[in-house]
Amino acid sequence: MLKAVVYDAYGTLYDVHSVIQRCENLFPGKGPQLSQMWRTKQLEYTWQRSLMDRYAPFSTVTQEALAYACAALGLELGEEAKQALLREYRALACFPDVRPALERLGGMRQAILSNGSPDMLDPLVAQSGLRFDAVLSVDAVRIFKPSPAVYRLVLDAFGVQPGEVAFVSSNCWDALGARHFGFASYWINRTRAPVDKLGVEPVAVLRSLGDLPDEVLR
Amino acid sequence: MLKAVVYDAYGTLYDVHSVIQRCENLFPGKGPQLSQMWRTKQLEYTWQRSLMDRYAPFSTVTQEALAYACAALGLELGEEAKQALLREYRALACFPDVRPALERLGGMRQAILSNGSPDMLDPLVAQSGLRFDAVLSVDAVRIFKPSPAVYRLVLDAFGVQPGEVAFVSSNCWDALGARHFGFASYWINRTRAPVDKLGVEPVAVLRSLGDLPDEVLR
Repeated sequence: MLKAVVYDAYGTLYDVHSVIQRCENLFPGKGPQLSQMWRTKQLEYTWQRSLMDRYAPFSTVTQEALAYACAALGLELGEEAKQALLREYRALACFPDVRPALERLGGMRQAILSNGSPDMLDPLVAQSGLRFDAVLSVDAVRIFKPSPAVYRLVLDAFGVQPGEVAFVSSNCWDALGARHFGFASYWINRTRAPVDKLGVEPVAVLRSLGDLPDEVLR
Repeated sequence: MLKAVVYDAYGTLYDVHSVIQRCENLFPGKGPQLSQMWRTKQLEYTWQRSLMDRYAPFSTVTQEALAYACAALGLELGEEAKQALLREYRALACFPDVRPALERLGGMRQAILSNGSPDMLDPLVAQSGLRFDAVLSVDAVRIFKPSPAVYRLVLDAFGVQPGEVAFVSSNCWDALGARHFGFASYWINRTRAPVDKLGVEPVAVLRSLGDLPDEVLR
């Protein structure tokens, strides 16, 4: 019944750990705090801009969130350091469980569906060497996840019905937004967090992508 | 030119400190962490539900966020403790700078515009003794701030234009959402945080509500 497997990018396929490491290198002792506030604001800004009807590409939002986080923590961010941090996002490593899972699922159509704008996403996918049938960005509809308009991009790209799509994300709210839209959602719970309480549940909660092929192919 | 002054409720007029205190009483040593995660999730859920087109009243969202925060922190939340925490939201004190500011602005139409559902908001306003020409809840449009549909409620209630409304919030993103809609927005920056970077600026940043009447009446 499932015809396509669609993956979130950041944190699901690609490990943002190197961004955290770079924050620590630039601001010793402040790395975890900076990277956490940066990530929190990055997401908040995607939701707030979407609701305000004031879309900006993820690359802009990511820069603005970084500027806010540095200001809030009293860190002086030079142009060079800023560019180094933003570059890191285009060169993330994929998690070790990604390649084997993608290979085992090679008989299905596979895609990325990401908040990332093409200027961030395309270089990232290219350098990683991963192959997809489609790399879909919210930029096409100018609103961020978890808007139904975003998940609908998959239907248009592959000519499938919501129930024919397996959706995979390490962001619980993203998995739940996709589930609400009608996808078979798998939440990759890498950090053993509780399921978000948004009145909807994922189809399954998996510890890693290694468990995904058996779930999807059974 | 300004004909109406519209206030956010939680954190702007009403001090949520007593909620934090109650968290600490129930879970000694965990109060700050619990109340911060509760608040963070409460807001995230409002944005995520709005974007998913899956509105639930703020009272529901508040309960769900509390349940998540307790689960994430490994805290056992009994029914009695839960009810005590939720009751606290209906009995918040207003900040000391509120009554004098509202009095000085008594010549203008004044309203609350809040994410709070009427079941939370109405008892809160009643017990505080503050008087408003209107107490407006997002519940009427079934989407949360900063959606333009929310700010539009003020125009319908008072028959005014956006440029005739002064909007006051201690939540920067709320002040910016209102500014984007066209209100004259005042951000009450009680914690000396940086302005959020959403591509729009408040009309003024004030330290407290005490500075508001001079700004609005000049």
